[in-house]
Amino acid sequence: MFTLHPRLSQDTIVLADFPLTRLCMMNDHRFPWFILVPRTESITEIHQLSNSDRMQLMDESCLLAETLMACFEGEKMNVAALGNIVPQLHVHHIVRFKDDIAWPGPVWGVGTPEIMNEESIHQRKTQLLDTLKTKCPDLRVL
Amino acid sequence: MFTLHPRLSQDTIVLADFPLTRLCMMNDHRFPWFILVPRTESITEIHQLSNSDRMQLMDESCLLAETLMACFEGEKMNVAALGNIVPQLHVHHIVRFKDDIAWPGPVWGVGTPEIMNEESIHQRKTQLLDTLKTKCPDLRVL
Repeated sequence: MFTLHPRLSQDTIVLADFPLTRLCMMNDHRFPWFILVPRTESITEIHQLSNSDRMQLMDESCLLAETLMACFEGEKMNVAALGNIVPQLHVHHIVRFKDDIAWPGPVWGVGTPEIMNEESIHQRKTQLLDTLKTKCPDLRVL
Repeated sequence: MFTLHPRLSQDTIVLADFPLTRLCMMNDHRFPWFILVPRTESITEIHQLSNSDRMQLMDESCLLAETLMACFEGEKMNVAALGNIVPQLHVHHIVRFKDDIAWPGPVWGVGTPEIMNEESIHQRKTQLLDTLKTKCPDLRVL
C-alpha cells in the first residue's frame, strides 16, 4: 500500500490523486509549491519508473505545470526531482515570480516556510483543483 | 537554427547531440553535472514542448540519468528544469554524493565552480560518452 513519506506528510497538504501520482501542496504561503509523488513501490529516481509510468509522469507533470502557470499567473515554473533529504521519489513544481523572496535562486533551504491559515489553504487549493478537474476527469480529489 | 544561450556556452562544454537535446557538461570539477538543452524553437518550459518531444525528452533524460549514476557511482541524481537566470529551456542532471560540498542542499549558487583542466575534462567526458554511445546509437558526438 502506498504511504507518503512522514516528512512529506508533515510539510504538505494532500490534495488529490492523478492516475499515477499523489498531488500535495507545500504548506508555505510564500510560494505556490506543489509536489507529485508517484504511488509506485519504493523508488528514488525517475529513471527507475517503468517506461509507461515515465510517460504518465511526464503527462501529469506537464498538466500540473501549465495549469499552475495559468492559475497563479507565474513568471517561471521550476520543476525538480531532488530527493537528497526525502528519498521517496517526488517531483517539485514551484511557481516563481521575479519578486519572490528566493528569486532568481532556487527555493529550497531559503528562509522558513510561512504556514498558511485555513482560508489561504482553501483559496489556493480551490484555485488549482477547480481547473485541474476540468482538464483531468481521472483526478480523484482527496 | 539552434543556438545555445551564451551563458550555457560560457559555463559548459558541449559534448553531443541526442535526437532531441544537446548534451553539455558543466565546467565544474566539484560535481558531475550535465545539462540537456532541447534543440527546439525558443521555449522556456517543458510543458511547451509538443507531446512527442516531451516523451523524447523523458527518454533522453532517463538514459542520461541512469548512465551517469552507473558511470560516476553516485548516491542520488538531481534532475531539474529551473531557468530563472537562463531562459532557454534546459534540464540539469547532477550526480550527488553524501560528501559533496552542497549535500543535502541543491548545488545552484553554492560556492564557485572549480574549472577543470584538460585532463579532467577528457576523463569525465570519455567516461560518460563511451557508455552513452553503446546505449544510444543515434548519439552524435560533437
